[in-house]
Parts: sequence; C-alpha cells; structure tokens
Amino acid sequence: MNILLLSGGSGKRLWPLSNGIRSKQFIKIFKRSDGSYESMLQRVYRQLRSLDFEVDITIATNRAQVSAIRNQIGDKADLAIEPCSRDTFPAIALAGAYLVDVKGISEEEFAVVCPVDPYVERDYFEALKMLAEQAEKGEARLVLMGIEPAYPSEKYGYMIPEKKDRISKVLAFKEKPDLETAKQYMEQGALWNSGVFVFRLSYLIEQVRKKLGYCDYQTLLENYAKLPKISFDCAIAEKEDSIQVMRFGGTWKDLGTWNTLTEAMDEVVIGDGRMDDTCENVYILNELDMPVLAMGLRDVIISASVEGILVSDREQSSYMKPFVEDMHRQIRFAEKSWGSFKVIDVEEESLTIKVTLNPGHSMNYHSHEFRDEVWTVISGRGYTVINGKRKPVKTGDVTFLRAGDRHTIIADTGVELIEVQLGREISVRDKKKHELEGV
Amino acid sequence: MNILLLSGGSGKRLWPLSNGIRSKQFIKIFKRSDGSYESMLQRVYRQLRSLDFEVDITIATNRAQVSAIRNQIGDKADLAIEPCSRDTFPAIALAGAYLVDVKGISEEEFAVVCPVDPYVERDYFEALKMLAEQAEKGEARLVLMGIEPAYPSEKYGYMIPEKKDRISKVLAFKEKPDLETAKQYMEQGALWNSGVFVFRLSYLIEQVRKKLGYCDYQTLLENYAKLPKISFDCAIAEKEDSIQVMRFGGTWKDLGTWNTLTEAMDEVVIGDGRMDDTCENVYILNELDMPVLAMGLRDVIISASVEGILVSDREQSSYMKPFVEDMHRQIRFAEKSWGSFKVIDVEEESLTIKVTLNPGHSMNYHSHEFRDEVWTVISGRGYTVINGKRKPVKTGDVTFLRAGDRHTIIADTGVELIEVQLGREISVRDKKKHELEGV
Repeated sequence: MNILLLSGGSGKRLWPLSNGIRSKQFIKIFKRSDGSYESMLQRVYRQLRSLDFEVDITIATNRAQVSAIRNQIGDKADLAIEPCSRDTFPAIALAGAYLVDVKGISEEEFAVVCPVDPYVERDYFEALKMLAEQAEKGEARLVLMGIEPAYPSEKYGYMIPEKKDRISKVLAFKEKPDLETAKQYMEQGALWNSGVFVFRLSYLIEQVRKKLGYCDYQTLLENYAKLPKISFDCAIAEKEDSIQVMRFGGTWKDLGTWNTLTEAMDEVVIGDGRMDDTCENVYILNELDMPVLAMGLRDVIISASVEGILVSDREQSSYMKPFVEDMHRQIRFAEKSWGSFKVIDVEEESLTIKVTLNPGHSMNYHSHEFRDEVWTVISGRGYTVINGKRKPVKTGDVTFLRAGDRHTIIADTGVELIEVQLGREISVRDKKKHELEGV
Repeated sequence: MNILLLSGGSGKRLWPLSNGIRSKQFIKIFKRSDGSYESMLQRVYRQLRSLDFEVDITIATNRAQVSAIRNQIGDKADLAIEPCSRDTFPAIALAGAYLVDVKGISEEEFAVVCPVDPYVERDYFEALKMLAEQAEKGEARLVLMGIEPAYPSEKYGYMIPEKKDRISKVLAFKEKPDLETAKQYMEQGALWNSGVFVFRLSYLIEQVRKKLGYCDYQTLLENYAKLPKISFDCAIAEKEDSIQVMRFGGTWKDLGTWNTLTEAMDEVVIGDGRMDDTCENVYILNELDMPVLAMGLRDVIISASVEGILVSDREQSSYMKPFVEDMHRQIRFAEKSWGSFKVIDVEEESLTIKVTLNPGHSMNYHSHEFRDEVWTVISGRGYTVINGKRKPVKTGDVTFLRAGDRHTIIADTGVELIEVQLGREISVRDKKKHELEGV
C-alpha cells in the first residue's frame, strides 16, 4: 500500500509549543511505553511501520518541516518537498508525480492520501487498507474515508452520502456549517471529511495534466510557485461524479487546538508541573527547565516553552490565533536534521544559543557575513572544520569563528555547545552554505 | 530621627519572584515616574530620603541580603548585619549596639524601629516623627504604632489599648486570633501590631544587658549564633509596663502574599504580558524574556521568573508555602552588590550563566577548586585580573579560567558576559575569596 502522508500547517493554534516552523505534528505529547514522549508524526509513522501488511510511505511536506521530520523519524522516509507553500491540490499533484517519476511506482498502483495529524488507533490503518481494496474494485475513481460524527461540529467539512451503508456514493460536499446545519447533517447521516482518500495514480496524473497542462515531477517542481492555491477537494473531489465514501466509526481525533489536544493526553502534566488539590481539569505542558505551580484553577491549560507561556481557559484557547499572529518574534527553538537549537539569551548585539548535535551528525558547512561566533563545547566530542581545516574538539574546548569563516562541527558522540553570536546585525538570514572542503 | 529599618524574611510566599535569597522587599513592582520599577526597599528608602526632616537610616539585615541591598540602594546606607539568622530581639539588640558603638550615636537619642516591607505613603513617615516626639515626652519607655484595622484579620497580632484615644497605654498583646476573636478585638478598638516602635537607645542597651549579660556590639556579634531565637515583642514589649500605643489610620498595607501584593500594583501587567477581553481581575508579573498570554481567566495571578512559573487563583496563592519549600532547586537569579547573575542553562557537568556588572563595579577576586570557566564578553569593557595579571577586555573577548586561577572582572562601562562553568562538581560553595593582587 502506498501511503502519502500530508505534513503541512503552521503552529499558531498550539502556541507556544508550536511556532512558525514547528507545526503541531512535531510536539512530543504522547507517552511511549519507555516513558519518553513522541509526536503525532512519530506516532503515526510508528503505527504505519508496525502494521502486518506492507506500506510504502512518502511524506508530502514543505521545506520548513524537512529538518524536523529528519530529526524525528530519521532520513529513511521519502520526502516530496514543496519548494513553497500552495494548497493541497498542488501538493498532492507534486507528491503523486514524485511517486511515479522519482520512486518509479507504476501508474497502475493506488495511493492512499492521509493527513499526518489525526490521533488514531490500529483500526484506522485497517480501514485505510479496506479503503484501498475498495478503490481497487474500480467502482469509483475516488474513494474517501468519512468519519461518523461524534457530535454536530462546526469545525469540519461534511460529505452527504447517498445511503447510510458502509460504502456509498457521495452526493455532495459541504463546507463547515453552523451548529444548526451541522445537526441536520448528522440526522441525514452525513460524515466528516477526514481528508483521507484513495485513487489510482494514473487517475491523479490524468487530472493534473488536465488542470495544469503538465504532470511530470520536474516541470511541476520548477513551476510550483505559479501553481494555483486550490485544495484537492475543490479542484478534484467536488467535481468528480464517480466518487464513493466509506464510513469509519473508530478512534479519530483532530488535535488541532489545546482543548482537543489535552483530551488526548495520557497525563495531565508533561514536564515539571505541580498542582494543588483544588485544581480541577487543569493541564500543564511545560518544556522549560523550571517548575510550573498551579493553584486553585479549573478548566485551564498551562503551556510553556522558550517561545512563551500560555495560560488559558480550555474553551477560550480556540481563539488564540490573532494573539499569536501579533507576536512578532524570532523563533527560539528549532529541531534540525542534525539536532536542535534553543535561544537562551538575547541582547541587542549578541545572541546566545544552546546547540545540540545528535551522534554522527553535523550542521551545514556555512559562514556568516556580519557576525562572529564563540563555541564552548559543554559535552561530547567531535571535530570542527574551519576554512577547510579539521580539528578535534571535546568538552571545554572553545572555538572562535570570525565573520567570513566557513565552519561546521561534526559530532562523534552527542555534542552540546553554547554558541555566543556577536555582531551589529544578527539575523538568521545571514548564513551562506558552502560545499564541505578539505576533510 | 534615627531609623532602624528591619530587612529580613525569606521569599516563599512570593515565589517565583522571590527566592531563597531574594525576599519580597527586593521585587521591583512599583512604577516610578520615569516608567521604571522600584522595589519595596527602594520605595521606602526613597520615601525616607525625601522627607523634609532629617533621618539617619540604618538597615538591620542578614548576610544573604547584603548584596541585594547594595545593588538596589548603593553603598551609602549603613548596614547592621546579623552573622546568622536569629529572631527580632537579637537583631534589634545588635542593630542598637551598632548605632551606639559603631556609629557613635548617643545613648540618649531615640531610635524608631520599623519593618522594611509595609506599603505606605507620606503620612506614615509623619506618624513616625510624631511617634518619636511622643517617646521624647518620656510618658512611656516604649511607644508603639498601632494600625487601625481595616477588617478583622487573622494575619496580624493585636494590641489592646486602655482607651480609644490617639495615644493610650497598652493593656495587652494578642497573638494572631481566629476570625471571631478578631471581630471582638476590632469592636474593642484593638489595633494591629505594626512592628513599629520607638525607644531611647539607653533603654534598649539596658534591656539587652539584663537579658543577655552583655550589650556591646563586638561581643554581641561574636556570640550571635548563641543568642536565643526570640522576638522583640516576646522578650521586651510584652513584659514592659510602661508602654504606649499611637493609632495610625493612614495607608498601611502588608504586601506579604500575591493577593495583597497585586492589590497595590498600579498596573495589571508588568513585563511582557497580554490578555484577552474575557480576562477579569488577572495579574501578570513576568520577568522572563518571553511573552505570557492569558485567556479566559478570572481572579488569577500569573508570575514568572527564572525560578519558575506560578499560575494561581488569587485567594489560593496564600497557601503556596509548602509547595515552594518542596522545590529543592539551586537559585537561578541573584542581585549582587556589583550587578546580577542569571542561570540560563543547566547540564550535568556544565552551568551557563549571564553575568551583568554595573559600571565601575567588580566581583570578588576569587577562585574555584573544581571547575573551569569561559567568559565571553557580550557588551561593555573593563579589565580582568587573573592570578595578579591585569588585562583589558571588551565585547567579543573570551577569557579562560582554569580551576585554581584567581580571577575577577572590573567593569569600566556596564559589562555583560556569558560564563560557561565546566566541571564534574559545580557548586556555589566551590568559591574561595582572595585579596586582590598585582593591580
């Protein structure tokens, strides 16, 4: 089974644990059996890998998420990377062409497209398989998964099926309704649009050629910025006559807001958090290296990271987006393919960050035009390459990097270092990548 | 007028803005006319300095507070420093002896003892003056200030006066009562014990000699650890027959808990804090370099510092002490006589701190046995002294300090530096002071 996992989105609704480059699927909130935590991405990837049938996974994503994906699930997953942000039709077109042109998958095969972020269990993946099998029967050109609504929700799009059978033709798609309309939909047996669907690759390719005039990976990639911002539903599904929906009544939770996310948490406290006996229905998610103490609260979510601190009534947290959009602030934490960094001090002409490199990894070989840097290794060992010269480093070693110096550090063990950036114009944009030399 | 300001206490009730060494009187929460904030200590000191009559101020305090006092009000204030923590009788005995033996004030003069931490206005200081004048009349050996209760409080000790006149003999002292008893006291015209009182120095000296067997500063200092832990009220006031109280009905607020402290705040937000329209009666005090967003809350105090984050119902916050006592954690922020430091990263074998030196100041000349340090100056200039060798430093310079190196930095301008401590045993106790050499 070919799975196309869609990993996109920004992180405004789960601030401060999400930020401009860390979307909700990267937040580690689900407890593993070993006591550590995994993200939605890690969870769904692990779930897919543990199925007793074969799946080929391709992740359709954008450039900003590549580092985090590499960090969280390694470099084995195939990524179809959007060069810039469009909507789901271009993204799926590009990913489909990637499957065919880059991965060499036959156009006769089927692809199951599904978003990376619903919280699901094993039965969901069984359903994906049945969805693919249904598509293979050839009764319809497009087969969708519809979620049986748990309540009349204003947050989802709906599909109106012809019949209440497990498999049915789709009569119509409906945009997010108001509460009253949502109730009517539910009574009619309508289903939430899960964003999950299956098609034969040749069908997609044909549709893409029709709509865009070309359908090969390279041309799509080169012209990506010019493609229309349109969703797959609008461009394809709503215009398709031969379309079926399969009902799914198992676990399916959209964890898009703090309110829904906390419902899926196994514990009420993640990180260093304490609360008194008078707290009721309080959740603490604390990524900071300091304690949070909650007293006398009810229905409150407290979430803290280096980006900031949210204290919100659970219901009210759904309205946070405009406040977060208003915070113009450099990113304070990022996962990179090689590890992560965290800003620990900000001054006008200096910035201090803590850099963590995973064993065997190294940052890009790069230089800065307007700033010097001082690295103090606080744990681990590896070697630096500076202007082509390689030198071993270990805990306690200090490295000076002048503006213009091409540099990297390659970690043997895990390496942590404190980087002090110094200069009049410190900016994440002041970075030039180079080919590694002299090693 | 001789003022003895008592500055003691620990910071458990105003965590996380207070900590083991930062008591509530050092938290900067009162807005100055220039938009900056001042602490209770700075406020009362400024108020005393702006009176139109002369005051000689001595601060009775303990060792842990000396740096913060020097930092906040400079080095001009006279400090009578307890070598260890006793109760108020030994503290006042030592401070009284300091006035006479060290400052050379005549035993015939009067001293007004008052705690540093009530929130007061000009009329309070006028009342102190009247209190001293009343004492000078010689009608009683001890004259106290009694606060007219605003409500029946269980938090204060009470004094029962003979009459409801402005000046009256005191019939009895009462411990903190329950609510019912407090109501009865109020009806009887009882007054809160403010901890403010006046005596002739010769009276104090005589009492100290009687109770302790000696009364000179040097002997008290040397034997301080052996002195009984007893309050001035218990040791002296409650046993004195010749005692008067003067009523005070002006502004007097004890800001000992978040609930009372927030009542005295001029603004609901100090630091980077935002709240939505649905927040009611919410206070944000944020010392961190990141935004706090509050949504849909009512009657909540949010307070954040490098020590931690408190989110509490305002009433409930009064019960935080046991939770804070349970947090065994190194201090993350401290004001020093020369500036301040803040812990910005903690690892097993490293600690990274940001050090801020005020212009013209320098840290003690010292060495560490078990750790190396790396200093990166991020702003300002001055010079280092390492093993007797002086060297200028400026922004961008890096200094290595090996275990055993005697070192200091002397700031010409304000200096900020990032200090990375490295070693297997990093402890605040690993510090040996030396005489500055070779400068």
